[in-house]
Formats: sequence, structure tokens, C-alpha cells
Amino acid sequence: MTTSALLTDLYQLTMLAGYHARQMHEQPAVFDLYFREPPYRGSYAVFAGLQPALDYLSQLQFQTEDLTYLASLELFEDSFLSWLSGFRFTGRVLAPAEGTPVFPHTPLLSVEGKLAEVQLVETALLNIINFQTLVATKAARLCQAAGQASVVEFGLRRAQGPDGALSVARAAAVGGVGATSNLLAGRTFGLPVKGTQAHSWIMAFDNELEAFRAYAQCFPASCVLLVDTYDTLKSGVPNAIKVAQELREKGFELLGVRIDSGDLAWISRKARQMFDDAGFPQVKILASNDLDEELIDAIRHDGGRVDIYGVGTRLATCAGEGGGALGGVYKLVEINGRPTLKATSDPAKASLPGRKSLYRVQDRQGRALFDLIALRGEQIDCGDKVFDPGNPARNQIIPAGSQLVDRRHLVFASGIYCEEAEPLDVMSRRCREQLVRLPEGSLRLVNPHRYKVSISQGLLQLRQRLLAAIEEQNLGTEI
Amino acid sequence: MTTSALLTDLYQLTMLAGYHARQMHEQPAVFDLYFREPPYRGSYAVFAGLQPALDYLSQLQFQTEDLTYLASLELFEDSFLSWLSGFRFTGRVLAPAEGTPVFPHTPLLSVEGKLAEVQLVETALLNIINFQTLVATKAARLCQAAGQASVVEFGLRRAQGPDGALSVARAAAVGGVGATSNLLAGRTFGLPVKGTQAHSWIMAFDNELEAFRAYAQCFPASCVLLVDTYDTLKSGVPNAIKVAQELREKGFELLGVRIDSGDLAWISRKARQMFDDAGFPQVKILASNDLDEELIDAIRHDGGRVDIYGVGTRLATCAGEGGGALGGVYKLVEINGRPTLKATSDPAKASLPGRKSLYRVQDRQGRALFDLIALRGEQIDCGDKVFDPGNPARNQIIPAGSQLVDRRHLVFASGIYCEEAEPLDVMSRRCREQLVRLPEGSLRLVNPHRYKVSISQGLLQLRQRLLAAIEEQNLGTEI
Repeated sequence: MTTSALLTDLYQLTMLAGYHARQMHEQPAVFDLYFREPPYRGSYAVFAGLQPALDYLSQLQFQTEDLTYLASLELFEDSFLSWLSGFRFTGRVLAPAEGTPVFPHTPLLSVEGKLAEVQLVETALLNIINFQTLVATKAARLCQAAGQASVVEFGLRRAQGPDGALSVARAAAVGGVGATSNLLAGRTFGLPVKGTQAHSWIMAFDNELEAFRAYAQCFPASCVLLVDTYDTLKSGVPNAIKVAQELREKGFELLGVRIDSGDLAWISRKARQMFDDAGFPQVKILASNDLDEELIDAIRHDGGRVDIYGVGTRLATCAGEGGGALGGVYKLVEINGRPTLKATSDPAKASLPGRKSLYRVQDRQGRALFDLIALRGEQIDCGDKVFDPGNPARNQIIPAGSQLVDRRHLVFASGIYCEEAEPLDVMSRRCREQLVRLPEGSLRLVNPHRYKVSISQGLLQLRQRLLAAIEEQNLGTEI
Repeated sequence: MTTSALLTDLYQLTMLAGYHARQMHEQPAVFDLYFREPPYRGSYAVFAGLQPALDYLSQLQFQTEDLTYLASLELFEDSFLSWLSGFRFTGRVLAPAEGTPVFPHTPLLSVEGKLAEVQLVETALLNIINFQTLVATKAARLCQAAGQASVVEFGLRRAQGPDGALSVARAAAVGGVGATSNLLAGRTFGLPVKGTQAHSWIMAFDNELEAFRAYAQCFPASCVLLVDTYDTLKSGVPNAIKVAQELREKGFELLGVRIDSGDLAWISRKARQMFDDAGFPQVKILASNDLDEELIDAIRHDGGRVDIYGVGTRLATCAGEGGGALGGVYKLVEINGRPTLKATSDPAKASLPGRKSLYRVQDRQGRALFDLIALRGEQIDCGDKVFDPGNPARNQIIPAGSQLVDRRHLVFASGIYCEEAEPLDVMSRRCREQLVRLPEGSLRLVNPHRYKVSISQGLLQLRQRLLAAIEEQNLGTEI
């Protein structure tokens, strides 16, 4: 899928026109993409969306119809539109690998290049990374809640349009959700597709048993029955058991049943018992109906016997406190070799200026201790003092024997990818493996341990110097 | 944009294969699309998404690559795939016009045709109508909160992928949001596009005044300045006043300023005073930063002087209590001429069976009294008793002199549209005009008057008869 070059905010184009008119458009500049709060009141986010973001950068160009539209706005000079017709993204991108757990204030993408090109791509990069990271994080939380059970994505009907649904399926896979109901996503990303039947199937027949038999006849080897159209335990499960017996006589086994309403913990336990008693322990129980990580956790806590959780609405819409949107931002951190920052009323919340490196500080067993943001090229050693960016009076020492692992690498340069595209299952494995290496309590769904992010001495000093300069300038304005 | 025929849940295809195998696929069937709870804890939703839904229906067909993919799943017979290759949607669709305020349990789309075709389109119709209706409703709430001020959509960077953002811009326009920052949406839907500059523009210059002057030089006739990069009232507004003076000397007027942080009520009031005192009463104040209808309402209540509200994240993600997703469902209500319903543990919540008409009951002044759902063709007169579907013991009389306005019409039949596509501004005018005719208190943002929806005697009796039959059948199963 090619993303249109017009998929951007008007202000990107007015700024570009301004830079072009003043001959600033080729000044070297660096932007950092980061977020300030982890979603869902958790401790982490799962980085996702890099590949689609790089696809966008590699394909970015203005078509004739785009330029005709821009000319029709009567805002832009012909010389600017002519320059835009030859526009390509030729910059460099540093990023973590998809599936990596990431934390507030740490630079995810750093985009380096000519001012015009690194500015223009802001909106689309945020659109792609914000949403996919948000979904991957939700998916990781769901999988964590589900424990040994698996999670399937059913969100197409509640997603934001066709493409939103595709992004959901892809990012959910990065976060560990193994299959989708969305056929287009299945084809596009090579994901396993799952599905059974709707209540309308059951209602299209004279009665439930007839509907079950009809389905089993068509799909004897992959039969999952929806058992809650009339009464799950009085009608649905007994009828499913009849069909399981009939299938077995023909040499097939009923795969499972889906329960889409009621008290899922209690009903799944009863249904499990009924299938086991009838000699069908292989029948899997799939539960759906507005599921979320908290509800899955509660069902397991209450002794529910669910093998597969189907999650739709709340995954596709990233529902939950602190969900809905990842507040990712894209900030200029250097221009013409001069580091910059965006001040705020609270100096501790000012952005982190300059080109930076992002390290994960690990102990000898490979367990993550904290993340460290340092200036690019700054020498960092064990024993160095590092600082809480929100409150520099709080500091700590990098423990002896720690490893500093650079979390990012060059992924795009000169218009091409620096690495081969990774399969989604490599990303989801990375996610799973790295999440368990976080400090104890970091994965708790509610009120987790807050993973520490520190800044280096060099970065702290640079920020303080720039804040002092702004303060002086503001005072100057006042006089 | 053509929507792939694969944009559906796998279960639609397995059900279709089953219907096809049993030669049920051409049985006449009717589905209703409706929702159960109004979003955002309001009283209404604004119906939107019809045109894109009809575009989908008119274009729906399986391409060779789609069929190849389906064959690779090893679930489907060749005879079914061969039938699928000739599939077209030939059914009929009844719907309200976009921009119409609609209410819980009332049928929005009714889709009538052969069982296979009306079943297959479920997922895509829900995807399109659910999301656009949710956004249009949010937009209407925002416009209502803004009063005389206008609202602009800035949500591209937080939307669910490129297409999600396009849907947002379109549906926001239906709900009354007059402009967007999204250039692609501007071109696609002919919407006005708006935008100024980012903080990065300001930071790319040595100081704020220089950045303002550079922008004003490029866009003297359409200059809006972002004034909060350093200190809004000490630096941003004084510098904007300097530039306004310089523009005036050249024969131009500064259009406005944007404030993106801080206490927007207080700062906008102070900024208004500063511009007025300096002789620039024409300068408009645009506010942004995580705005929502509640916040806009609070800013106005606190004496804020904002002319334009820029809303991004919370519009694009439909944030808010009861937001995030419209729980629209698509239920089989008739098959082979036999009305059907989906029972639940609470009989009052059972779906409404059969082919139905939806009326708005209005008084002589055209004010809406309540909505009435009746059987198609059922004779309804003033003086008739009508019933609360959740509690039929509660009933009321259709007042003498009321008008019954049929809320829906035939919009699609035999593969083609029955009406010309409407411009978005016709829809948004309809929305505005019909919202003010709702009963007093219906538009309150918080805890509004709940608009009544009633069912006719005929519909009530049909539902009771079907529920009794299911009850009997369940008892039968138990024995």
C-alpha cells in the first residue's frame, strides 16, 4: 500500500514553503520521536510500526495530482511546488527493533537529514508509530493476562476504517496475538485466520441442533460451534455434545465451542465439566464479548476454563484508562549543529536536546536495570552518576559489571532500508523475551513498578545550559 | 478507494460456504444494523458513513488474488470459490440520511436480499458505519460545546492509520467540524484545510521574533503564529503584536495566533486583551492541546476568549466515557419470510424481529417527541398505544395531531444507488437543524434527557410470541 504524500498536515507544507523561501530547507536537522506517558497506566510500551514507517519514507513522493491540488490552495509559489515535485526522503533513521519494550522520554525514532525532509514526514510517522505501538502494547498486556491461553484478534468491525483494522492486526501480532479474523490482514501479513459462525447462522435454521449439524457437515475437520444463541448450558453445550458424538462416529473430533455472553468464568467451567464428562476433553473453549486484560485476568482468577480469548473492540480501539492514543511527539532536537529544546512552564518537563544514544543498562544475567539516554558519542562507564530527568536531584550510579546495550541502530539511509524486513513472529518473540527481563513488578497490569529512565551528565548539562539561555531571552523580551 | 472483498471476518466466508453447500444461500433474508447505547453517555448519535458503505456494496467483488488466497486456506470447496468469483451485492438497503440524529435500538441500515449477500457484508458495514457515526457524534458534541466558535480537526497524527484519519475528517464534517489539517482529506472530500506552524519552526530560528517575521513574509495574507514555544504572554504575544504592526505597514492584517499549552481560558483572555489594547481586534485566537467537549465547555464557562478550537487526539480516537467504539450490531431479523430474534437472559433486551419501519413522531411545530419502531406496513395512528421496549408495562399514547415522519428511505437496490450523493455540508446542516428540534435537555453534554424510543403493538406482540416459542424449545432440550 502506497501512502499518499498528501497524508500530512497543511502546516508541514506551509513550513516547508517558508524554509524553502529562506533557503533553510537544506540545513541539517534532527528530530526525535518519543512519548511522555506509557499507555494503559502500565510501565512500558511495545515499539511497533517501524516497517510501515520505512515503507512510507521509501515511497514518499508528490504526484502530479497532489501538486495540482496544492496549487489550487493558492498558498504556494510555483518555485516551491516545482521543488516539491522532485522531493525524496534521503535522510537517516535510527530506531529500536519492533517488539522492543520502550519507555517514556526515550528517543524511539531519530530522524536526521535536511530540515525540509525531516519536517515533512512528522505527521505520517506519528500516525503510523503512535497507533501501532499502542496496539502492540495492548496486545502484550492481553497475552500477559491470558497466561497459557491464546488470544485472537476479532476487531475489524470496530476498527477505524479498513486500514485501521489492518494496522490493528499487524501490531497485535507484534505484541503476541497469534491470529486474526480479518481475511485481508491474513493475506497481507501472512497471519493465521480464525473464525466460526455468527448468531445469524444459528437463527437461519429451524433450531440450534440443525444449525450445528449443518456446520459440522461442511467443516468436519475444523468445527467450532457458537453455543450461546439460546441458552448456553441448557441448549448450546448439550447440542454441541451431540454433534461431537456424531463427528466422532465419522472419524472427526469437534475442535471447540465459542461462548459470547454471560458469566464467562462460571459458564466456561460448567461447559468444561460437561464436555469432559461426555468424553470430549479435546473440545477447546473460546470466549469472546467485550474482553479486556482486566476481564481476562478476572476470569482466570475466578477459575474460568477458557483456552482461547477472542478480543475485538477493546483491542482495535486500544480501550482502557490511559489508552485511546499514544501521545507520541516529534521534536526538533538539533538544527545546523545547534541543539534545541522546547521549554515548558515546568523546566523538568523540557525536551531532551541534541543527538542522543539510548542504552539499556543490564546486569550480568541480562536483566534490565534501567534505560539511559546520553549524548551521541558521550563516554559512559560503570560508576558514572546518572540523573532522573524530571528531578535531577535524584541520581544513581551505574552499577559495576553492568552492560550498556545500545537499543537502536541505523535502519534507513540514503532512501533505502539498512536491514532486511523481519517476520512478525521474530518481533513477537523479541517482545516476549524482553518483557520477562524487566524488573519485578513492571508487568503488573495495575499500578506497576515504574521502570527508571535516566539521563547522562552530559545531557543534563546541555539541557540546563539551553534552559538558562531561554530564560535570559524571555527576560530580555520583557524589558 | 476500493475496499477489498477480503475485508471481512473469516466466519462470514465459512458461513457462506455452509449456506452454499446446503443451497440456502439464495433464501431471502433481512438484517438490521443498530446500536444499544448512545456514545459518550449522551442521548443521541449522528448517523454517518452511508455513502462509503454504499460505495463498498457497489464495488464488492472477489478478485483472482482473493480467490487464490481463500483456496490456500484449504477450507473451501472449489464449487463455492467458483460461485464466489461471480458474487455481486444485489440487495436493497434502507437507511436514514447522513447527519440524522439517531437513537438506541432503532434500525439504521436494514439490508435485504439473498442470505449469502446480506450476511457477507456485515463486517465491512459495521466497520464503516460504527466508526463514522461515532466520529460524527463526537464532532456534533464538540461544536455544541464551542457555541459560536468554530472547531477544526487536527487528528491525523493520532488516528488509526491513514484511512482512519480520512474517515475521521469526513465524519467530523458531517457532525459540523468545518475544516481539517489533513491535506489528503481536503483533497478527497473537498474540505477546507487549515494549519500554521509547529514548535519546530520557531526553534529552527535563532529567536521567536525572527521565526514569526519569516513566516509573515512568506504568508502575509494568511498568517497565524504559534505563540507558546517559550512564554506565551511574555514573549509570544508581544512578538506577534510586533509582527502584526509590521504586516499592517505593508497593507496586511495578522489573521490569528495559536496557543497550544497552559491555562487556555486565562491565557486566551489575557492575549485577547493585549491584542485589543494594541489595536488588533481582528486577530483570532486558536486554541489546541488535548481539547474535548468538556474542556471547551469549561474554557467558555471560565471566560476564555477562543475563536477557533483545534481538536486532534480526542476527536480522532473518539475519546471519552462511553466513547472509543460504537457498539453497533448487525442482526438477522427475518429469513425466508420468518421473523427471527436473538434471545438474551433478559427478555426485555431481546432484539426486535421482522421487517420494520422507523418513524419520528413530531408535534405540530416539527419538534421531535419520540421515535417509534413498527412492523413494516403496520397501520399506526394518533391515539395508538406504544410501548417501552425494555419495559412494556410502560406505555404511552401517540398524541393527537402528531406527525409520523418515516426516518428512512430506500438508498440502494439492484447494485446501484437510489439517490445522488449528497455534499457533506448538506449533511452537517441536517445534523444542526435536527439536533435543535430534539426535546429540551437532550443536547446536554452530561447526564442528558434520554430521548424515548417506543415500539408498536404489532412489534411487541411479535417479539413476545417468538420469545415464548424459544422458551418452549429450550425446555424441550432440557428433557
